[in-house]
Amino acid sequence: MPKLSIRAHKMPASPIRRLVPYAEAAKKQGKKVYHLNIGQPDIFSPQEALDAIHNYEEQVIEYSHSAGNESYRKGLAKYYQSIGINVDHTEIMVTTGGSEAIIFAMLACMNPGDEIIIPEPYYTNYSGFANEAGVNVIPITSKIENGFALPPITDFEKVITDKTKAIIICNPNNPTGYLYSKEELYQVKELALKYDLFVFADEVYREFVYDGEEHFSAMKIEGLEQHVILFDSVSKRYSMCGVRTGCLVTKNKEVYQTALKYGQARLSPPSLGQLAGEAALKTTKKYFDNVYNEYIKRRDFVIDALNKIEGVFAPKPKGAFYSIIQLPVKDADHFCQWLLEDFDYRNETVMLAPASGFYATEGLGKNEARIAYVLKIEDLEKAVKIIEEALKIYPGRI
Amino acid sequence: MPKLSIRAHKMPASPIRRLVPYAEAAKKQGKKVYHLNIGQPDIFSPQEALDAIHNYEEQVIEYSHSAGNESYRKGLAKYYQSIGINVDHTEIMVTTGGSEAIIFAMLACMNPGDEIIIPEPYYTNYSGFANEAGVNVIPITSKIENGFALPPITDFEKVITDKTKAIIICNPNNPTGYLYSKEELYQVKELALKYDLFVFADEVYREFVYDGEEHFSAMKIEGLEQHVILFDSVSKRYSMCGVRTGCLVTKNKEVYQTALKYGQARLSPPSLGQLAGEAALKTTKKYFDNVYNEYIKRRDFVIDALNKIEGVFAPKPKGAFYSIIQLPVKDADHFCQWLLEDFDYRNETVMLAPASGFYATEGLGKNEARIAYVLKIEDLEKAVKIIEEALKIYPGRI
Repeated sequence: MPKLSIRAHKMPASPIRRLVPYAEAAKKQGKKVYHLNIGQPDIFSPQEALDAIHNYEEQVIEYSHSAGNESYRKGLAKYYQSIGINVDHTEIMVTTGGSEAIIFAMLACMNPGDEIIIPEPYYTNYSGFANEAGVNVIPITSKIENGFALPPITDFEKVITDKTKAIIICNPNNPTGYLYSKEELYQVKELALKYDLFVFADEVYREFVYDGEEHFSAMKIEGLEQHVILFDSVSKRYSMCGVRTGCLVTKNKEVYQTALKYGQARLSPPSLGQLAGEAALKTTKKYFDNVYNEYIKRRDFVIDALNKIEGVFAPKPKGAFYSIIQLPVKDADHFCQWLLEDFDYRNETVMLAPASGFYATEGLGKNEARIAYVLKIEDLEKAVKIIEEALKIYPGRI
Repeated sequence: MPKLSIRAHKMPASPIRRLVPYAEAAKKQGKKVYHLNIGQPDIFSPQEALDAIHNYEEQVIEYSHSAGNESYRKGLAKYYQSIGINVDHTEIMVTTGGSEAIIFAMLACMNPGDEIIIPEPYYTNYSGFANEAGVNVIPITSKIENGFALPPITDFEKVITDKTKAIIICNPNNPTGYLYSKEELYQVKELALKYDLFVFADEVYREFVYDGEEHFSAMKIEGLEQHVILFDSVSKRYSMCGVRTGCLVTKNKEVYQTALKYGQARLSPPSLGQLAGEAALKTTKKYFDNVYNEYIKRRDFVIDALNKIEGVFAPKPKGAFYSIIQLPVKDADHFCQWLLEDFDYRNETVMLAPASGFYATEGLGKNEARIAYVLKIEDLEKAVKIIEEALKIYPGRI
């Protein structure tokens, strides 16, 4: 029998997946499981997008342009211009989810064996995309004590080699909820100019910024226009993860043209997803206000409630809808499994994502977990109560 | 400014793309252009699929399972069983078009630097996917004289090295329209067993088989179950290329699980495409009969008409909706460009795909072009007339 590739053996399985069989077993036993582990919001998709699907008029569902429908790209350009990002439709390439934008950028900018620096904890799938592109992730550790702010630039410089080609900045951050400031981004700029690096800016949570803070896009860093590649997605903005519609945005023509060659090989991004994405551009301010208010309520509730549990520390996220929380346990991987396998409170339990999977450095995050506050307040209330009760009797508590 | 990757520079641009600006310029001059160059059929998508889109009931367009919705996979399993391919839904992974299935298979089975053998001329995008996966395509030349039958097995053996990991068999073939026989597939089996190779079977044109011939799937090769990975797509079967829904099918559990890890990294295939794909499983026999009759008519017309032109040779394809035709010209790349740039017949012209782009061996296919007979008979009639008139005055004629 032919053997699998070595890279396939190295391909990391999602840290959340490991627990899925335990969650399934818990459900089979009749336990209700609150999922704080995933970023699938329960918010309705905009009616504008749903209507566009219902009213789809074509009789042949054709390929679109490999860079996406021009009308959609023009609409996206208007959206970006409205938030102060000065791009036109020829600088936007529609991709199959934000995921594909990341892969195309890695393929276009990095050789196999090249290195990409990512502040950890980071979105796990970056490791998967790096595996596909044959590039190595070099983590720089950010700390829960300061809410996962940008690590000192000297930390970056320590690991830069002649193989370093890019940095990923996910802002607001998944999994930490941290919002990088303009000042931090300008520190990244200096680094990128000094060492001639690409800056991959993952800003899919741009609209989820709280407490009057303002999101500063990497696309607005003056003098870094040729270095920045923006990844975006409609998944979270409009709560329609399933359409698989994202985009890659860059003012670097060479990068754009090269990414497009990869885009041409896969022919086109999904036509129906683009239909929904274009219609969603008409989403009302009222929709976003409702979503915003809902997430603020959820965040405020869940962070306050978690911090009231003895031994738990949950930094208040300024963006996105995640938080990495510290737990009074020796091994959060074990705790999360135990919650599903051995614990229930009134026949209910909680699924969390152990944070170790978001760190590339072995041994970090062992007493941390990521929560996504994508559930209704009533459910969050029950979930927090379950965590509280669980910690009272969990044998691995410290 | 940071430099692009070396692989990006090696990424082949689609051979058809080179001519796109010329086609656009021709249209701007007011010329009508008949597109025989692309595989975008004008056949309507099944009403069942369109209805499913119109009646979409969800209010949150959620991620699906990374392997695709179970109900859809169960439906696909039934479809495969109905055509004698014995698989269940745990052996089917839904992908974003057939393209993604190919990339996942390459990533799972091949290391960077490994080699994949493909009979040429072949579907150009295989080269793009190979670039992404960092693997090298080793072409084996098939010949127009015998309609592009499988080259002798000795030709394969000559190029096999310890880096050879897989063979791609596209059946029915794009771009040649050739239908591989059961006997030919059993020759491939011997080779795969002898050298321990994966067999990547691209069978997206399975339903397009003519003249009472029967398609024999590589999945039916006895004793090769652990070697075969099937790529499939709804794009051509149901004329809905834009939904980006395909699948990877294999009885090799290890390959499946590994491909799934790559699938998990990109979260899920498009949800709306799956909706259309599942509904399309109910497509009536009448729909397929109509499509079949239409393509037979088109093929018979266009092949007969082309062969009547002096110096043109068009082998009669037994499947798919393409043919590689021989032209009495020195350089088909130039001829195809000239058709767009310098020629018109009553203000109309034709766009063909020069065949050189379908060969990996430099210098082959210089007097060949691929046609896709995806247009109405009236249009095909005009297109052939244009080719005939063009060849009368083309300066590079031999």
